[in-house]
Amino acid sequence: MEILGKSLIGFHDSRSTTGPFSAWNPASGEKIDATFYSASHEDVEGAAKAASDAFSSYARLAGRERASFLNRIAARLESMVDLLVARAHAETALPEPRLKSETARTCSQLRLFASVIEEGSWVSARIDHGDSERKPLPKPDIRSMLHPLGPVVVFGASNFPLAFSVAGGDTASALAAGNPVIVKAHPAHPGTSELVGRAIRECVREEGLAEGVFGLLFDSGNEVGAKLVQHPLVKAVGFTGSIKAGRALMDLAVSRPEPIPFYGEMGSTNPVFILPGAMALRGKEIASQLHASFTLGGGQFCTKPGLVFLPPQHSSADFLPEFQAKVARSPKFTLLTSGIRDSYQREIQSRKGRSDLALVAEGEQPASGNAFLAGVAAFQTDVPGLLRSPDLSSEVFGPSSVLVHFSNKRELLDAARSLSGHLTATIHGTEEDLREFSDLVYLLQNKVGRIVFNGYPTGVEVSHAMIHGGPYPASTDSRTTSVGSQAIFRFARPVCYQDFPDSALPAELKDANPLGIWRMVDGKFAR
Amino acid sequence: MEILGKSLIGFHDSRSTTGPFSAWNPASGEKIDATFYSASHEDVEGAAKAASDAFSSYARLAGRERASFLNRIAARLESMVDLLVARAHAETALPEPRLKSETARTCSQLRLFASVIEEGSWVSARIDHGDSERKPLPKPDIRSMLHPLGPVVVFGASNFPLAFSVAGGDTASALAAGNPVIVKAHPAHPGTSELVGRAIRECVREEGLAEGVFGLLFDSGNEVGAKLVQHPLVKAVGFTGSIKAGRALMDLAVSRPEPIPFYGEMGSTNPVFILPGAMALRGKEIASQLHASFTLGGGQFCTKPGLVFLPPQHSSADFLPEFQAKVARSPKFTLLTSGIRDSYQREIQSRKGRSDLALVAEGEQPASGNAFLAGVAAFQTDVPGLLRSPDLSSEVFGPSSVLVHFSNKRELLDAARSLSGHLTATIHGTEEDLREFSDLVYLLQNKVGRIVFNGYPTGVEVSHAMIHGGPYPASTDSRTTSVGSQAIFRFARPVCYQDFPDSALPAELKDANPLGIWRMVDGKFAR
Repeated sequence: MEILGKSLIGFHDSRSTTGPFSAWNPASGEKIDATFYSASHEDVEGAAKAASDAFSSYARLAGRERASFLNRIAARLESMVDLLVARAHAETALPEPRLKSETARTCSQLRLFASVIEEGSWVSARIDHGDSERKPLPKPDIRSMLHPLGPVVVFGASNFPLAFSVAGGDTASALAAGNPVIVKAHPAHPGTSELVGRAIRECVREEGLAEGVFGLLFDSGNEVGAKLVQHPLVKAVGFTGSIKAGRALMDLAVSRPEPIPFYGEMGSTNPVFILPGAMALRGKEIASQLHASFTLGGGQFCTKPGLVFLPPQHSSADFLPEFQAKVARSPKFTLLTSGIRDSYQREIQSRKGRSDLALVAEGEQPASGNAFLAGVAAFQTDVPGLLRSPDLSSEVFGPSSVLVHFSNKRELLDAARSLSGHLTATIHGTEEDLREFSDLVYLLQNKVGRIVFNGYPTGVEVSHAMIHGGPYPASTDSRTTSVGSQAIFRFARPVCYQDFPDSALPAELKDANPLGIWRMVDGKFAR
Repeated sequence: MEILGKSLIGFHDSRSTTGPFSAWNPASGEKIDATFYSASHEDVEGAAKAASDAFSSYARLAGRERASFLNRIAARLESMVDLLVARAHAETALPEPRLKSETARTCSQLRLFASVIEEGSWVSARIDHGDSERKPLPKPDIRSMLHPLGPVVVFGASNFPLAFSVAGGDTASALAAGNPVIVKAHPAHPGTSELVGRAIRECVREEGLAEGVFGLLFDSGNEVGAKLVQHPLVKAVGFTGSIKAGRALMDLAVSRPEPIPFYGEMGSTNPVFILPGAMALRGKEIASQLHASFTLGGGQFCTKPGLVFLPPQHSSADFLPEFQAKVARSPKFTLLTSGIRDSYQREIQSRKGRSDLALVAEGEQPASGNAFLAGVAAFQTDVPGLLRSPDLSSEVFGPSSVLVHFSNKRELLDAARSLSGHLTATIHGTEEDLREFSDLVYLLQNKVGRIVFNGYPTGVEVSHAMIHGGPYPASTDSRTTSVGSQAIFRFARPVCYQDFPDSALPAELKDANPLGIWRMVDGKFAR
């Protein structure tokens, strides 16, 4: 499959020749073959118009018809896994096994949403029967269910070229709910994006859908994304990336004449709390596994544990030497882009110069060269230090983490209370620790979207109960998740029908329940 | 019960003596006895701090404990219905029978939410069991449920001194979900607000809850509301009122360092579409009932039908004369405030002077005097006129409505397509009309929160399926409702627990399901 470097506007390729850019190979620091062109103003208009035109037919498809579309995309991506992995590896330097499993995850996400809409109960149908005899006024018949919002813009993420990009979770959930999708490709992996985008386009054609159900726009800068978020025909946005970019786009979304939902999954430091009992029992093992977690994928996961609370010294005697040794023996990592590498290096240099932080250890340091290489670095401080410098709890994207020593329970709770929103928090403890620190669990409920017990935050299960989100700035909307089947709720809104004849109601709300879905009928769940 | 005019900061009364103001009797245009004082900066700080302090204990109460609190408030309000109705009547001039039924509605709302949290399934518990044998990685155990957000600020509405004010739907749903509430009282009915606020405070005391679970702040202007919305300890806002005020507050909420959810239920013109079959069958009857609906409560309902589409003349021969006669025989109405009366008069004068609108008829006009009186006025235009002047579809708060003649189906669909968001749309039609105009139903699904068939939009049933919301500007968040039991979801967010021991899980997520609630277990609903 040849890479053309053109944005996909429905079934047409963009004719823009402006804003040319290339992908870079992070391992060599060199440009990769094809030239990509930034979408023009006409491309943005064309994609928005096509998506809006497609909405009325796509939204009205039955769940099983949209499921067939999602399943077809999954099968198509699977059939081209080698091509995808090779291209994504060249553009991101992420290891091939990881990219293979990321492709599998992308396909299983699409199939999860397909199964949800095929089953159909996700629309949260509710029926309150009327009562014409009620006094003083007759009671009307009221029935509600979820409907899609309209065209959704999805921003591809740099660190997941497949699972959080063109056919990733945001796209899958928005398409599942019945919304056309326009993806703004991440410029760090445009070739991978184009391959996936063309695959989706073929599926649109083969399923006989309106061409505007899917579009893909390239841009070397920020302009296309900003225009999309502000476009009157766009009704919601899904974003994964930095706090700075996410907040800037959110500000555009909410200051439109018609504000729209903006779902930004942004930065997180994912605090880990090691409680005394667990430290005494498993200090060495935790040190080793924590090292593996914070350096996984070069520390470029939004769930990387970047802040680790350690109990008073005597119980952590095994932890520190092991952790230090693991860090010191760490190989250097290839980061995704030169921009990520540069800001990582800058932040590590700055942290090395701080008087309120001490270097615990660092790994192999890269020699100067073209590749986007970085070395592992770990720091330490104590709770008073963290409370004086809350910026220490902000995210450093790359293979670095900060250990924070606490001297007693009160200090630990103060530190937890001082945290802003994060995607996850992790507690290592015995059941006795949990009883002793029960206030910690309660505090963390109000700070994060997921609390992990005796595990590690990296690795996000894609399932019905998963919550990948959290209070600001972890996400811009803590009421939602961007991973797992509940992500579909982001792209739908309820509508109710009063005193409608059965024949004019959507199938989900008809008396006979022809789809056999779970509904709340007169306040009780029934099928 | 004496009225003191003081804000309620937990169990204490404000000592502020600044910004004094009074309630006005709309029927006489005269001030009513007591003086009220605007909350001070310290009052705002005190209320926010008390609410935040109360959150940790209140959020952790079992559903049945919070239900007992809500049921107690309902019983207390019922026990003082005569006092409430008398004071509210003096402050709003709304008829006593209406205020009596509004009190009953307020109590039934509180009891509806009590029943929802007592039953418990609203927390949307989900359990995905782990599998330690899964390859290549073990599958973790993941369990999610909804938790409250934190202190919620509620703005009382002028037009529902009880059901959308101090103990109204926003307060009931926020308290039900486990959030402390600070109400900013509407200055048009401060005495009613104080009576209800003191009643809630007594219930807080009698239930042994933390004092910050409820607070009530007065203000003659906008400053207290703006401070509350921007306060770092406040986590969500519920508002019912004008687009102008709602948007200004929303802009504050989303531009905070930590943006928070803002639920504004704002303006709506509630278009009514009378289709040819229904017009031929029931033209005269519809004219009469529509008149009753748009003048109900002096036209001061957010669901007032302010835009009525009429089919070509020959079938509406019965409609117009009846409508005209009803309007001409309309008595004058007392509006809620002098501000509402002034802007109503201004808008009616302006509409009378427009060349793109014709006066259909007007009712009895008030003589000059102190009372806040206004006369009924109805106008007409055609679809091309409406499309040229989209401002004709914006809300006029008061007893006025606009008839819009359409000449064919295409024109009607164009008009529907041109509408912005509304709370409701209404279709009068036969089943044959519905088949013929099926595209209209689809179009309206994307424009409103509720579609009424062969009825009238005024009168909002409080039930499980009701949706009172809609695309902007009807509301600032179309994914939610401010009426009905689904309103509770506005004030909660999901949290998931990974690999937690059963003993440390909330009761809702324990294996044994001790609360007997409906849950999604491994993708299937079960109890």
